Amino acid sequence: MPIDPKRMVADLNELRALTGDSNGAQRVAWTPVWLKAREWFYGKLKSLPVTQHLDAAGNNWVTLKGRSEKALVLGSHLDSVPNGGWLDGCLGVLCGLEVLRALSEDHDGNPPFTVKLVDWADEEGARFGRSLFGSSAFAGTQSIEADRVRTDRDGVTLEAALRQCGVEVEKVGDASVERANLAAYLELHIEQGPVLERLGLPLGVVLGTKGVERHAMTFHGQEAHSGSTPMGDRRDALAAAAKLALEIRSIAGKHPDAVCTMGSVKTFPGIVTAVVGRCEATLDQRDLDAGVLAQMYAEAKSASERFAAEEKCTVEWSRIWSIEPIPFHPELVNLCDEAVREVAGTSHRLPSGPLHDAAEVARLGIPTVMMFVQSLHGISHNKIEDTKVEHLELACLAFDRLARKTLAWMASA
Amino acid sequence: MPIDPKRMVADLNELRALTGDSNGAQRVAWTPVWLKAREWFYGKLKSLPVTQHLDAAGNNWVTLKGRSEKALVLGSHLDSVPNGGWLDGCLGVLCGLEVLRALSEDHDGNPPFTVKLVDWADEEGARFGRSLFGSSAFAGTQSIEADRVRTDRDGVTLEAALRQCGVEVEKVGDASVERANLAAYLELHIEQGPVLERLGLPLGVVLGTKGVERHAMTFHGQEAHSGSTPMGDRRDALAAAAKLALEIRSIAGKHPDAVCTMGSVKTFPGIVTAVVGRCEATLDQRDLDAGVLAQMYAEAKSASERFAAEEKCTVEWSRIWSIEPIPFHPELVNLCDEAVREVAGTSHRLPSGPLHDAAEVARLGIPTVMMFVQSLHGISHNKIEDTKVEHLELACLAFDRLARKTLAWMASA
Repeated sequence: MPIDPKRMVADLNELRALTGDSNGAQRVAWTPVWLKAREWFYGKLKSLPVTQHLDAAGNNWVTLKGRSEKALVLGSHLDSVPNGGWLDGCLGVLCGLEVLRALSEDHDGNPPFTVKLVDWADEEGARFGRSLFGSSAFAGTQSIEADRVRTDRDGVTLEAALRQCGVEVEKVGDASVERANLAAYLELHIEQGPVLERLGLPLGVVLGTKGVERHAMTFHGQEAHSGSTPMGDRRDALAAAAKLALEIRSIAGKHPDAVCTMGSVKTFPGIVTAVVGRCEATLDQRDLDAGVLAQMYAEAKSASERFAAEEKCTVEWSRIWSIEPIPFHPELVNLCDEAVREVAGTSHRLPSGPLHDAAEVARLGIPTVMMFVQSLHGISHNKIEDTKVEHLELACLAFDRLARKTLAWMASA
Repeated sequence: MPIDPKRMVADLNELRALTGDSNGAQRVAWTPVWLKAREWFYGKLKSLPVTQHLDAAGNNWVTLKGRSEKALVLGSHLDSVPNGGWLDGCLGVLCGLEVLRALSEDHDGNPPFTVKLVDWADEEGARFGRSLFGSSAFAGTQSIEADRVRTDRDGVTLEAALRQCGVEVEKVGDASVERANLAAYLELHIEQGPVLERLGLPLGVVLGTKGVERHAMTFHGQEAHSGSTPMGDRRDALAAAAKLALEIRSIAGKHPDAVCTMGSVKTFPGIVTAVVGRCEATLDQRDLDAGVLAQMYAEAKSASERFAAEEKCTVEWSRIWSIEPIPFHPELVNLCDEAVREVAGTSHRLPSGPLHDAAEVARLGIPTVMMFVQSLHGISHNKIEDTKVEHLELACLAFDRLARKTLAWMASA
């Protein structure tokens, strides 16, 4: 039973029919549709020589026991956002399943190393707003004391929803016991961006996840009558924010993979007949290099203060959230590059802007790498999210090669 | 009984105590407090040789009959916004009252021309959103068919509120009969802007009310993930709007009194992690010269299209409202200038950004001019709105001179 990419695509379509509707995928974590997806997945394991268990955070572990307890882990997530795409998350799980099938066959059910497949619980955070829930519990970076009181839009608490799925909030930290003997972690995911499509490449090697600096800014000027206030007498908070909205492009432009985004602008009083007295804006900055990220943050802050002064305004900053860049393992990056080249002819290395469960694993020091497959139009979290079937099949072949190369690397380490 | 500025200030304080509270003036048109202000005003007329009547739109006319039916009209409005200032509107009415007292005394109750004082109904439009209600009915520019179904925040219709004040919606157009024999119109108002304060001058001559072009714009780009979308692949609708927010300052800056304001910006989806796919903004442009106004509108439209193209976006415009510039009468402007110089030593001519009842009168071709008195910090529509008492007194003296000069001008015409 060699690797069978068409079987993986058939699995993906089966899951899509079972857990999607005309608005897209509906596998939101901690809901009945998500549990249904997991039940379906358990059914797929029946013919394999594996064991399965849920850890204390609700992560689902499938184990193909090897001659050594030292383990290679393949992972991703079955959960989706509401009205999501058919590939985001579940591609990695079902490709991992296909690789597990092939490895168990090749080694007569007893490979040289243990191989695990993990379906992380609640990667998206769609219902309670806490993404990477299961992998952060595993990594010990969970924030359950703060998160337990989170509620969904119907007022149901995170704690109550987890209990319904058999997870006790008190104990999610115990998922850390799963770290034992893990030697490498591999994850396949759709790119969710336009880079590979623009380059005409099916597959890419992920260098790591970018660090993020996420801030809210408030520019304070002076509300004034739009008819009676001469241009020279204005303290226009919008003008200061507009200058920054344009300047962040120059700030990002100095670095090849850096991005800076002003995603939200709010004006107060926000009426057609008044100069803007207060302007609230957000800034999201990302790069794989911590030094670049720090420099971009400092430049944006300094520019905002210069623009505020030019407009006779003031500006305040407050950090919403930040995370350091998490580079993947250089030797695994090279192995991934080889696997992609062997299957697709050409490879491309790129950082990931979005975070992934792989970042939580890599933070622990477990050697990690991700592979990306092209996303059409770079669109995800939407029912029109799509990837060409031939690219999905190439991804399956390349990920299988990566797993085998990693097992060989573990043997030589 | 010569003109007595201190009596006018005493009247202003009396009205403030009667119709204001700790949040400011509460003389919102078509409410009990407004009717109370008018009752108080009727009381002030008792010792004068005048008649009084409400016209079909609820404007209150006080007539000092002269030897000729040809009439000079002094006017403003007693109504205020909620939590408004103590001077906006009522200063002009109570200064007019003081001038009426002085003129009736000087001419033994029978001046050469008839002199009228009008308190326009609902200048502010605070309760139903239709400003210049009474003066537009007088001018025949009312829009009562559209306005009759307007409701206040409690769901009371304009029609019902007017009926309670004795005004029948069907008949408001009959206020046009008041136009007969009107030869000139004068209005004193606070500036509501910072120009006179900045120049250190108590009084100014108003050249006219600026024309207004008021538009809504929507920039369409492409919503995209802030982490996975490289800077060069973005179609950022906010960037196009930000360029326009800055460009309108150059567009206005070519003309000494022009103003352009972007008062509202809304971003969609408006979240920290997404490039702005759609940006809605408003633009308010004003100038006293119709050619300048048309040029500024054309330049802003063209710039917005250029910026949209630069950002791979599109832009749509829709007109919210517009009005042509309404210049005041050049000979009355000169008379006002003389009056201000005689009282204050120095004069300054400036356009009015805000509209006033005087604009409705001037549109009819009735010779019109306004005088402005300095506003502290340029603030109005707020309980902290204020003007120095010595400036109010100078305004009273200058407005009295203007009235006398205008009567002489009528005689020579």
